Amino acid sequence: MDDVAKPERPAHRAARGYRWEKVELRPYKEDERALFKSITRQVLFSDPGLASELRYFEVDPGGFSTLERHQHMHAVTVLRGSGTCLVGNEVRAIKPHDLVTVPPWTWHQFRAAPDEALGFLCMVDALRDKPTLPTPDDLAELREDAKVAAFLDGRT
Amino acid sequence: MDDVAKPERPAHRAARGYRWEKVELRPYKEDERALFKSITRQVLFSDPGLASELRYFEVDPGGFSTLERHQHMHAVTVLRGSGTCLVGNEVRAIKPHDLVTVPPWTWHQFRAAPDEALGFLCMVDALRDKPTLPTPDDLAELREDAKVAAFLDGRT
Repeated sequence: MDDVAKPERPAHRAARGYRWEKVELRPYKEDERALFKSITRQVLFSDPGLASELRYFEVDPGGFSTLERHQHMHAVTVLRGSGTCLVGNEVRAIKPHDLVTVPPWTWHQFRAAPDEALGFLCMVDALRDKPTLPTPDDLAELREDAKVAAFLDGRT
Repeated sequence: MDDVAKPERPAHRAARGYRWEKVELRPYKEDERALFKSITRQVLFSDPGLASELRYFEVDPGGFSTLERHQHMHAVTVLRGSGTCLVGNEVRAIKPHDLVTVPPWTWHQFRAAPDEALGFLCMVDALRDKPTLPTPDDLAELREDAKVAAFLDGRT
């Protein structure tokens, strides 16, 4: 017998609403320093045979992801609901099946609409760096742009 | 100036039905030897900064993808419609948001329902091998399983 664990690879995992068979509902992240609200994570694909992972994040109405940046990119496909995203200094309304590209070292955050959850797929490299949080100076610089400040305050 | 082309990375590309801004509608594949029917391809994410690509395939009612296998894996998320997939010797009905995992060197094919298109996202490694088509012997072996034979003949 090979002593390397064989990955479990069920051919088909059914969706049931926005939950999936054999996929655990997890907290968004473990980092206690990061500010975020009302968001869950499900890892849909993660396998030693795949160079990337596909995760599903769901943000409750009024919730938001962490404002952060990192070397690795995010490739996001919205699945449900509506909200707004910040990528660099761009603020965009997003709706189902829209695509969002987060380039390396670009500040980004996702916010659900006040009255509707926002669910999205996010593809990332399996091997990736840890996110960096903004310093007070970074935040001050971001806030120099009025529309970015409005986004950060949940006023968009 | 750096003479390496800077990738174009629009932060946001809106979905319009099952077409996307700045995404070209392409033929499914160029290989003339492969048997397939009524299927298109849109590459949603492909970037030198990403280890994987995310593509959207749409199969018209009654259409099907190529029966093939390869070293690289497929990580599929159904977006619209309904149909059936073959993975190894498993035949499964699929519906929106279901997940399909195709392990290395596993025969696979996707078929749309007779009366409904099937659209799905497929995540693959950016660096990957070319697909292999079945030999007559491979086909005979697959057909030994009655439910696989029914799938291959479009009778499921």
